[in-house]
Amino acid sequence: SAASTPIRATLFPGDGIGPEIAESIKTIFRAAEVPIEWEEHYVGDQVDPRTQSFLTWESLESVRRNKVGLKGPMATPIGKGHRSLNLTLRKELNLYANVRPCYSLPGYKTRYDDVNLITIRENTEGEYSGLEHQVVRGVVESLKIITRQASLRVAEYAFHYAKTHGRERVSAIHKANIMQKTDGLFLKCCREVAEKYPEITYEEVVIDNCCMMLVKNPTLFDVLVMPNLYGDIISDLCAGLIGGLGLTPSCNIGEGGIALAEAVHGSAPDIAGKNLANPTALLLSAVTMLRHLELHDKADRIQDAILNTIAEGKYRTADLGGTSTTTDFTKAICDHL
Amino acid sequence: SAASTPIRATLFPGDGIGPEIAESIKTIFRAAEVPIEWEEHYVGDQVDPRTQSFLTWESLESVRRNKVGLKGPMATPIGKGHRSLNLTLRKELNLYANVRPCYSLPGYKTRYDDVNLITIRENTEGEYSGLEHQVVRGVVESLKIITRQASLRVAEYAFHYAKTHGRERVSAIHKANIMQKTDGLFLKCCREVAEKYPEITYEEVVIDNCCMMLVKNPTLFDVLVMPNLYGDIISDLCAGLIGGLGLTPSCNIGEGGIALAEAVHGSAPDIAGKNLANPTALLLSAVTMLRHLELHDKADRIQDAILNTIAEGKYRTADLGGTSTTTDFTKAICDHL
Ligand SMILES: CC(C)[C@H](C(=O)O)[C@@H](O)C(=O)O
Ligand SMILES: CC(C)[C@H](C(=O)O)[C@@H](O)C(=O)O
Repeated sequence: SAASTPIRATLFPGDGIGPEIAESIKTIFRAAEVPIEWEEHYVGDQVDPRTQSFLTWESLESVRRNKVGLKGPMATPIGKGHRSLNLTLRKELNLYANVRPCYSLPGYKTRYDDVNLITIRENTEGEYSGLEHQVVRGVVESLKIITRQASLRVAEYAFHYAKTHGRERVSAIHKANIMQKTDGLFLKCCREVAEKYPEITYEEVVIDNCCMMLVKNPTLFDVLVMPNLYGDIISDLCAGLIGGLGLTPSCNIGEGGIALAEAVHGSAPDIAGKNLANPTALLLSAVTMLRHLELHDKADRIQDAILNTIAEGKYRTADLGGTSTTTDFTKAICDHL
Repeated sequence: SAASTPIRATLFPGDGIGPEIAESIKTIFRAAEVPIEWEEHYVGDQVDPRTQSFLTWESLESVRRNKVGLKGPMATPIGKGHRSLNLTLRKELNLYANVRPCYSLPGYKTRYDDVNLITIRENTEGEYSGLEHQVVRGVVESLKIITRQASLRVAEYAFHYAKTHGRERVSAIHKANIMQKTDGLFLKCCREVAEKYPEITYEEVVIDNCCMMLVKNPTLFDVLVMPNLYGDIISDLCAGLIGGLGLTPSCNIGEGGIALAEAVHGSAPDIAGKNLANPTALLLSAVTMLRHLELHDKADRIQDAILNTIAEGKYRTADLGGTSTTTDFTKAICDHL
């Protein structure tokens, strides 16, 4: 039976508050009887030559094998001669799309109360090519690279996501009035994919106008798909609308069906080990992982429990204006299951 | 006397609603006895080979001679073989900084009520280089160019602006964690200039984080200075916070002391000629022009009149939820002078 063969998933608890909030997720998953068995991996204390970073080769192999993982905050160690942990994961696992569902949490008041959108960011190229050089003294250049392959791939993911998640519209965000060739190619690929999804409305929005519309009226948007840097900017802007990175789930989709969910907030070393951290972003990210595994019942049950706990307002961590410990908040969520 | 030698300023009324709102500015300037004599120029109906655009050579000569101008909305005609009007103006007049004071208008409610910041955008290079090409089929690249000269120039302008306008802090916005060479050079230049202004606090903020902070709490910022594309994005985002481009003044600073103020909203052809347009953005832009000319008394008087008219709420155009015509609203402002 399904219960007897649990799904193996990689867990990177991460640094700082990472281990505490990962513990919270494990507790809640056990309480909800999620059929997942975690394979835990920590960041190493020296550079692994096979990854050129502090990530161990074994941990990457674990994600490749399990095809599904959850990652807490990781602080990239300072120093030269290695790659950032996030960039290494994206590169090595070919995590081509970063998906962030962004919705207002009932009962947690911000200036916006009905946000409900999805940002889908191309995660492998664009302004993140790493190709830069000095032309002459005082003149430097960076290359932005857009490929047909990566653009089609992320556009396909966005439309498929829209279709399978009951979404009605995909907006491609761009600056093709200035970058006619690069953003132009991105749009061309989006248009090609849009043709295959006649039931989804397709539109194109210039990034500056998009940001203005988002702060005026975020309900104008449904699914947004965009090149790397615009996705970096807009996904954080949207997180700000609903309260910040501590409340925002994120999931990275890789070639071969990999899904690596992650909390995108920092490791908060100042409060680490004090039982004060808020596990919400990591838990909601874990929920996106369950949805990727099509464990929708478990996903709904956990998502409802956390949203109800926050809405009720009795147990909240300090960042949400409460006085609860991580363990009290976690227990409250379990009680709401 | 000053009254007998008026300052000559170039006026581009522009297209669509442009001529109506320009008329409003002329009326209010006359009522406030601003010692300005306008030299009007319209966009031509064919490409001028000397400008490669529909802008006439004479109109550019007029701005170069007067060193000060005001520009209404201009719709770039569709078609090939010419440059966009805005980009032509920036290039030909070397308009290196776009300055946008962004403040909440008393009495005009948005989700934010105490915005008061200045965005200063480098306006000549970066992602707007126009250098793009196809590497191989399906792979295209754009070049982002950052130079020491342009970065120092805009940083110098930002700090000088902060100092002369009673501002306390300059934030340089960047993505140097990814674009280490280009954005790194931009930051290096800002740091060099910051050293010369010990009385101004200097900080560096990553663009994604900046956008999140802006939507959560815009009062965290004072003066922001940034490369071209980030400025394009953030200046529109900030305009959204206070109600949109129809309320946002803008001024472009060029080499040799040129100041070209402009309304950055569109030409709204649907309501053109109907006496319905809102002249606020163009008028507040004209006020920035007066400040550039150090006509602070006139600037204060006109700015107070328009803010009081909007705050009073009796006369408002349709875009602000009222029913006033352009001429009624203009008259109300004159009455408040
Ligand atoms: C830390 C940084 C390199 C990273 C990025 O720009 O992608 C971060 O902002 C993110 O969104 O994950
Ligand atoms: C129309 C476009 C080319 C322009 C720009 O990107 O600079 C506009 O967005 C602006 O900010 O003036």
